[in-house]
Amino acid sequence: MTPFGELWDRSLRTLGIEAGLNAMVDAGITSEEVDALYVGNMSSGRFTNQEHISAVIADHTGLSARNLPAIRVEAGEASGAVAFRDAYLSVASEVYDIVVVGGAEKMTDVSDAMAHEIFATSVDQQWEVFLGATVPSLYAMMARRHMHEYGTTKEQLASVAVNAHKNGSKNPNAQFKNQISVEAAAKAGMVASPLGMLDCAPISDGAAALVLAPLDIAKRMTDHPVVIAGSGVATDTISLHHRESLTTMRSTSVAADLAYRRSGMTPEHVDIAEVHDNFTISGIMAVEDLGFVEKGQGGPAFESGKFDIEGDLPVNTSGGLKAQGQPLGAIGIAQVVEVTRQLRGDAGDRQVDSPQVGLTQCVGGTGGTSVVHVMKVI
Amino acid sequence: MTPFGELWDRSLRTLGIEAGLNAMVDAGITSEEVDALYVGNMSSGRFTNQEHISAVIADHTGLSARNLPAIRVEAGEASGAVAFRDAYLSVASEVYDIVVVGGAEKMTDVSDAMAHEIFATSVDQQWEVFLGATVPSLYAMMARRHMHEYGTTKEQLASVAVNAHKNGSKNPNAQFKNQISVEAAAKAGMVASPLGMLDCAPISDGAAALVLAPLDIAKRMTDHPVVIAGSGVATDTISLHHRESLTTMRSTSVAADLAYRRSGMTPEHVDIAEVHDNFTISGIMAVEDLGFVEKGQGGPAFESGKFDIEGDLPVNTSGGLKAQGQPLGAIGIAQVVEVTRQLRGDAGDRQVDSPQVGLTQCVGGTGGTSVVHVMKVI
Repeated sequence: MTPFGELWDRSLRTLGIEAGLNAMVDAGITSEEVDALYVGNMSSGRFTNQEHISAVIADHTGLSARNLPAIRVEAGEASGAVAFRDAYLSVASEVYDIVVVGGAEKMTDVSDAMAHEIFATSVDQQWEVFLGATVPSLYAMMARRHMHEYGTTKEQLASVAVNAHKNGSKNPNAQFKNQISVEAAAKAGMVASPLGMLDCAPISDGAAALVLAPLDIAKRMTDHPVVIAGSGVATDTISLHHRESLTTMRSTSVAADLAYRRSGMTPEHVDIAEVHDNFTISGIMAVEDLGFVEKGQGGPAFESGKFDIEGDLPVNTSGGLKAQGQPLGAIGIAQVVEVTRQLRGDAGDRQVDSPQVGLTQCVGGTGGTSVVHVMKVI
Repeated sequence: MTPFGELWDRSLRTLGIEAGLNAMVDAGITSEEVDALYVGNMSSGRFTNQEHISAVIADHTGLSARNLPAIRVEAGEASGAVAFRDAYLSVASEVYDIVVVGGAEKMTDVSDAMAHEIFATSVDQQWEVFLGATVPSLYAMMARRHMHEYGTTKEQLASVAVNAHKNGSKNPNAQFKNQISVEAAAKAGMVASPLGMLDCAPISDGAAALVLAPLDIAKRMTDHPVVIAGSGVATDTISLHHRESLTTMRSTSVAADLAYRRSGMTPEHVDIAEVHDNFTISGIMAVEDLGFVEKGQGGPAFESGKFDIEGDLPVNTSGGLKAQGQPLGAIGIAQVVEVTRQLRGDAGDRQVDSPQVGLTQCVGGTGGTSVVHVMKVI
């Protein structure tokens, strides 16, 4: 992956190419050995005026010299995760052997106001945005309801961000490497009550990529292949007000159930997880909807240190969206990159002790799409 | 499919829903039987401010009530065709059984100037559009070179449009039902020399959808299932100036070769074809690159009536992009709808006599992506 951050000197295509080529170098393959390219990207048409970036990246990574298939997949902020699933299915079903899958987003070439307008293209324009809702305000409603139903506190929300920044400080690719305190996070300027500035993930540029292959081929590439054990994707209503509950993402729980069943795993098997903490409340709902704790216990669990790197179940060792950064289409791939590094033992200062099973969870919009993958070492 | 045209009273979501539900009704299934949704769309983020329309359409067709997977695929104007391929692979590889795949675009909610700016997001922004190139001007360069190399005439270009309008006049869903003459087409106001107004397909709204299933299940739905016999997708450089030739689309010839080989067919087997005639020159290059005629013979062949409904190999019986309309993400699906109707014998006034094999060809940008499918009756 590339570093995440405000990368003024890099364009969408240079980011995508850098990540794609790095992944091929890491796998020890050349473009001659690749069968197809999948690209996750949320809104290059809005951010950079360029649609059809599957062909752009295929071209500039040398893949179109062989006229290889290149597919862009989009599902809001879950674009990278859905591209990863599509690429995985194409290999698992023996359509292709070696596939490169990448995610990229260049968000800082537009104004902050425009970036936030584009952000909101992942939620319901007709029934939410048109009436004044923003992405932060929708998540704020979830947070407020979660506080009402379960007694979740501002400090518990803050503890999600504190954990993220602590981990991000150990990640060379992270956008934010500064640690923060619960007090500072809880008192940060308000964005959409109860969510303050430090409850929100940033606007970021960045890209990440992976090489997928059948296990026999992967074993020739590396001594430490990581296996995709289960995969689930699910939708829910695009608009928040159509749901039975504001405090659970049904798309996440359904996707997780699919991924657990297909992998033969339960939440108890998971050693590390990367979850979609675009807002602190999302991190709390994620660990609940994934079955790591009972519904309502996410806040206390984050506060207790359960999800710290030294805790029972390290969550977002990368720094998560909050500290590693949030280049929309790249998120879902970066999560898998982090889990892969951890499972390989390549995570440097933030390495968890010998994890065997890792999980990723990525969300589009306010949960209109969720994607869960379970990975393991062999 | 919905009618194609300037549909002021319909939104992207109502178009997508109408086509999706119509396809399910035609297949005699309910949303309860569907396993997944694939959506082809080029630029809903630019045209309507709404990304993540996979979830929007899944929601409004009732599919997200069951939290079904929904995937949007984008490859410029080939978005629908690539979505069709992705959906096809998901069924052929037994990931899913019954899949709905749709394509939709709503282009008329923005100004004409903006629509053309969005159009150009499928070609190279950095090395083409930034320097003043437009989609018509890039195709005009191909046309000019084709005239230079092969003696193709303005009247031969015009004959592609004349054929399209003649067929469109028999298609209730077509945007243009008026017939035109070669003289009128050749003398129409210039857009980008040598391409005049009647060499160019229009700006359109519309949607189309299909139900895919394994053959044993399809046979329970209909007495006339249409089989996908071969599928190919290929890329080329995103920018025109990087190619060896301006008069052939290598992505089309590679995709066609894949589709022919997988289906065990040759161009001689094809009874009908829907090709990507976004400009008249594209129709000429398509019939050459697909192997229907020798390179350089596309113009004379159109002029001779070979590709008329009454000719040897009817092309674009729907009216093509030129007359049926050009709602970008819907094109690739609408092509398959037309071939399906023809192969089933359901094409009304424009029915060809008992075709057995049909082909579709769809292009993103200036050929950065091409997609070819071969279909047959059983």
